[in-house]
Amino acid sequence: MKARWKLTIEYDGSAFCGWQRQEPGIASVQETIERAIHGFCQQNVTLFVAGRTDAGVHATGQVAHVDLDLPEKYEGYMVVKAINAYLRDVAVAVTHAMIVPDDFHARFSAINKLYTYRIVCRSAPLVLEGPRAWVMHHELDIEAMRASAQHLLGQHDFTTFRDSDCQAKSPIKTLDRLDFELLPYDGVGGIEIRMHAEARSFLHHQVRNMIGTLVQVGLGRWTPADVQDALMARDRTRGGQTAPAEGLCLTRVDYPPC
Amino acid sequence: MKARWKLTIEYDGSAFCGWQRQEPGIASVQETIERAIHGFCQQNVTLFVAGRTDAGVHATGQVAHVDLDLPEKYEGYMVVKAINAYLRDVAVAVTHAMIVPDDFHARFSAINKLYTYRIVCRSAPLVLEGPRAWVMHHELDIEAMRASAQHLLGQHDFTTFRDSDCQAKSPIKTLDRLDFELLPYDGVGGIEIRMHAEARSFLHHQVRNMIGTLVQVGLGRWTPADVQDALMARDRTRGGQTAPAEGLCLTRVDYPPC
Repeated sequence: MKARWKLTIEYDGSAFCGWQRQEPGIASVQETIERAIHGFCQQNVTLFVAGRTDAGVHATGQVAHVDLDLPEKYEGYMVVKAINAYLRDVAVAVTHAMIVPDDFHARFSAINKLYTYRIVCRSAPLVLEGPRAWVMHHELDIEAMRASAQHLLGQHDFTTFRDSDCQAKSPIKTLDRLDFELLPYDGVGGIEIRMHAEARSFLHHQVRNMIGTLVQVGLGRWTPADVQDALMARDRTRGGQTAPAEGLCLTRVDYPPC
Repeated sequence: MKARWKLTIEYDGSAFCGWQRQEPGIASVQETIERAIHGFCQQNVTLFVAGRTDAGVHATGQVAHVDLDLPEKYEGYMVVKAINAYLRDVAVAVTHAMIVPDDFHARFSAINKLYTYRIVCRSAPLVLEGPRAWVMHHELDIEAMRASAQHLLGQHDFTTFRDSDCQAKSPIKTLDRLDFELLPYDGVGGIEIRMHAEARSFLHHQVRNMIGTLVQVGLGRWTPADVQDALMARDRTRGGQTAPAEGLCLTRVDYPPC
């Protein structure tokens, strides 16, 4: 029975060149899963993804859809198990699978995406969480970062935070959430700042460019008003650096109820 | 100036044969740090540790003491930085360092230790957190596990949960805390159970043997009364299996205020 499947996917971005399939021999998340699907049901498929992540960016809640022709008895947990059996020893797993209507599209049906960015402030490197966070050897002024984030909420022209390779038609996006959680990290003074950004969609590098800019405020080099000026300038050269990929994780993609 | 230093240490246990130095060529946490200290100050030292962890067991708050002869200007953060500079590309880091009185002993001065054990219940393997938790493909009855844990609290003869290699003089220990936190894990039905065990000291494998036993209750194979019977039997063959090392982490060691 031919059906459209929605897959929820987790991966360690440091093991891949990013989501998108590239030339042979370069490990992309997409190609790795497409191969695993072929392994289990011998079908050559193309995955359609909610958000193409860059090299080094992680996901705990990436979503893709794929059309599969499987015996009718196949349930979600069986598809999860079958694909994961062909993903042994690679840093990607399918965590959930369900049949969706034929007009479901992982990217175009999405109504909201949550990205999480982790910064750990301490002097020691991270040895238990490898490349899972941006390690900063300085304290950050989180209240100033929060104040700056207020200027970015809502609908704006985000050209200042847009990568030059971005293929979106318009630089206008609506940022629905940009807040910061403060957590003790290691019991001896280390602090984790966990930033949550939600929008229906983002420009290429938008989250990492916003974080890189807000960190300038956290370090006391910029004021919140500087962030607003940078946004209004609609000029990438007025924004801060692109924050490293390893701190970023696509955590959740939301869809209307089926 | 010769002084005793207290070091707080983090490591990924999957990269080591355990804490304790073994024959040359086998990477122990102890030898790795002793070498790093030699690298930075050319002193041959011996580390004394709060709790010798087994192969695969992690630490975020291990404590060791060491006597170092350093110029008087050396402050804690400088020692942290200097040792970590010789720990690049290995999965261990010093997160804190401070001078303590000469009679401080990492093991004998400790008044409390906190071990954390993580179980993730879901069908997919963990790809972002590698060997950081015991993955179970079944749901666990956490209320039954909590009820069982009540029988283990307090002072008991823990022979049932003691490894045959254990070198402690007495099997009598006082367990001050054994509770369970329940957390959503991946947003698609995965659940994490985080168990916290506190005592002044533990027998060898005691935490892992208690967890392996409580999981039998969680799976519905044992009742809480069976756990009490097993404890009373003072017989290792009456306890459950030893839970895998990868779920265990030495999280904190407490000392009286200096």
